[in-house]
Amino acid sequence: MKRVIVIPDSFKGTMSSSEVCRTMESAIHEINSAIEVITIPVADGGEGSVEAFLKALRGEKVYCKVTGPFFEEMEAVYGRLEQDTAVVEMAACSGLPLVEGREDPMLTTTYGVGELMLDAIEKGAKKLIVGLGGSCTNDGGVGAAAALGARFYNTKGETFIPTGGTLKDIVRIDIETCREKLKGIEIITMCDIDNPLYGKQGAAYIFGPQKGADEKMVEVLDNGLRHLQEVIQNALKIDVSVLKGAGAAGGMGAGMVAFLGSKLQMGIETVLDVVGFEELLEGTDLVFTGEGKIDAQSLSGKVVMGVAKRAKSKGVPVMVLVGAIGEGIEPIYDEGVTAIFSINRAPIPFEEARDQSVENLYFMMKNVMKVIER
Amino acid sequence: MKRVIVIPDSFKGTMSSSEVCRTMESAIHEINSAIEVITIPVADGGEGSVEAFLKALRGEKVYCKVTGPFFEEMEAVYGRLEQDTAVVEMAACSGLPLVEGREDPMLTTTYGVGELMLDAIEKGAKKLIVGLGGSCTNDGGVGAAAALGARFYNTKGETFIPTGGTLKDIVRIDIETCREKLKGIEIITMCDIDNPLYGKQGAAYIFGPQKGADEKMVEVLDNGLRHLQEVIQNALKIDVSVLKGAGAAGGMGAGMVAFLGSKLQMGIETVLDVVGFEELLEGTDLVFTGEGKIDAQSLSGKVVMGVAKRAKSKGVPVMVLVGAIGEGIEPIYDEGVTAIFSINRAPIPFEEARDQSVENLYFMMKNVMKVIER
Repeated sequence: MKRVIVIPDSFKGTMSSSEVCRTMESAIHEINSAIEVITIPVADGGEGSVEAFLKALRGEKVYCKVTGPFFEEMEAVYGRLEQDTAVVEMAACSGLPLVEGREDPMLTTTYGVGELMLDAIEKGAKKLIVGLGGSCTNDGGVGAAAALGARFYNTKGETFIPTGGTLKDIVRIDIETCREKLKGIEIITMCDIDNPLYGKQGAAYIFGPQKGADEKMVEVLDNGLRHLQEVIQNALKIDVSVLKGAGAAGGMGAGMVAFLGSKLQMGIETVLDVVGFEELLEGTDLVFTGEGKIDAQSLSGKVVMGVAKRAKSKGVPVMVLVGAIGEGIEPIYDEGVTAIFSINRAPIPFEEARDQSVENLYFMMKNVMKVIER
Repeated sequence: MKRVIVIPDSFKGTMSSSEVCRTMESAIHEINSAIEVITIPVADGGEGSVEAFLKALRGEKVYCKVTGPFFEEMEAVYGRLEQDTAVVEMAACSGLPLVEGREDPMLTTTYGVGELMLDAIEKGAKKLIVGLGGSCTNDGGVGAAAALGARFYNTKGETFIPTGGTLKDIVRIDIETCREKLKGIEIITMCDIDNPLYGKQGAAYIFGPQKGADEKMVEVLDNGLRHLQEVIQNALKIDVSVLKGAGAAGGMGAGMVAFLGSKLQMGIETVLDVVGFEELLEGTDLVFTGEGKIDAQSLSGKVVMGVAKRAKSKGVPVMVLVGAIGEGIEPIYDEGVTAIFSINRAPIPFEEARDQSVENLYFMMKNVMKVIER
């Protein structure tokens, strides 16, 4: 073997995608140091996504002053990649850790996310990748849209920047300036959940509580998002009520589509597109991927399947290493996966095994490599 | 791949060697039904050894009337293999399950084992494999020797058949007839433990209690074996006090060597010799083996290592599948093992995992085969 691609998901609760990459790479090189290893840590859009893209591709961090969750001034970072592409993760200035101990989805804004995007555009970016996830907001993305020029009017005809608690006050919107600014700019929003904007499965009900909302507040937030949907429907003739993922990151999924003309896409598909996975597969002998647990549910849309499908189309075999193998995974072999291995060395419970994850992964990788290179 | 040898140990507490063979074979055939699979279940000498040899080689069962543990008449079985070889397991007529509820190592005899051997010899066997293990006796093998013509005399000059409780009464022995009967017969005794004949690590102290001996009885039995050693030393000039494995099966190890001129040998070495493992390796592409748990201790003398060493000498790669991988096993790769895989699919405790052993082994085998046959 001459070239291998390593492109794993994180092993939830034990190892980040980057850690898995490092471990797999060193095991490969222990067996054969001459193999070229391309490591691609997979970003899902949440915290660490910029970092992951910068590790996978050449690029640099750009720091800039933006508006924080409570409209305070703060410094945040995004990534500038090659080919006029920028990566923004909303967690950078609207992330839950930024408001620890003072969570309030009624008041927090995504305004800073729009500012990061604007900065990237002003510096020449033609393609923006925006990662949703880990947000402290419930503003339906109106904050970000406002930073990019969208105007939101209240009953008095005044413009304002709505937040979760004041979405219901929007009576009119004007996104002309915003659309103007984004002309010629491709925006891809990374979004790994498919919750709707509102309702029992919506942003407020499902994710509100972890952002500090009590039962009553959840109801207010949900009504706000419901109202926002009506405004969008009336003004823009876009129906975000049926949009899967509209409820991601406090309704930011809806705002990205309705105001900024973005498409929503799974993290793995975005990563595969941006790194040019198909081209990398040319001349690659083998792909290693993996995740924490694989089961019948992971057979749709997750990292392993995304990787396997594209590798299959190029005829490159895929080896999967996971923390646990559930039931009903047999169909995976038809989707481009050659073999699956669990990293467990012994029958011991997860609480004990988790501390040995890196060691176990390394050991298993080494043995799979030994079979391959025998 | 055209030909594979499957030669696993049992997975203690979960699967017999035959069960492991069957599971591995069907997984191989699921991936490639054209591969010739030679399965060799490994006997350790204990119960099931005859069965294992008959499965690994052509042969037939021979039933005969012999003396049971309490000198009662019973029917027992041994195996007649090709090339004038017979396999006798002492458990057939001196096994612990035969005396369940009435264990008494003071009174039980190995006489029947000698009768089985004699029957085989009379029917033309030139080579006897005798499996020790799982015995209910503590007679130092004098019973078996007596059946084959050895004579044991007491103070009154009378011959008798000593048992655990009467070993101390032996004052003189005569093994001339016995040696005569065994002339030209090769006897190999399978013995996987290396306990000495007597003392704190000897047959009585270590194995007496599980055969029904209380503290006092253990002392009597130990003294008996100690006395037997002196008798052997004086009469035959053979020092069984330093013989590793002399204490196997109630001292039967000592008797096999001293009276019957046998050699003691690990089960796996015996199996490898008898099946002609080296010749089988010619034209074999790969060997699969395995055991319940592999760790630093298993690096000497166990099935996996025995298999790996011979396979290495013929340059055939060895894949190992186990129930658990312990620490310190790295040196195994220098001994002919290509790769080791644990069959655990998920981090769950043994109590849960054991019920999935067959399924897990099958799954892992299939995936290893997929890598090999990709």
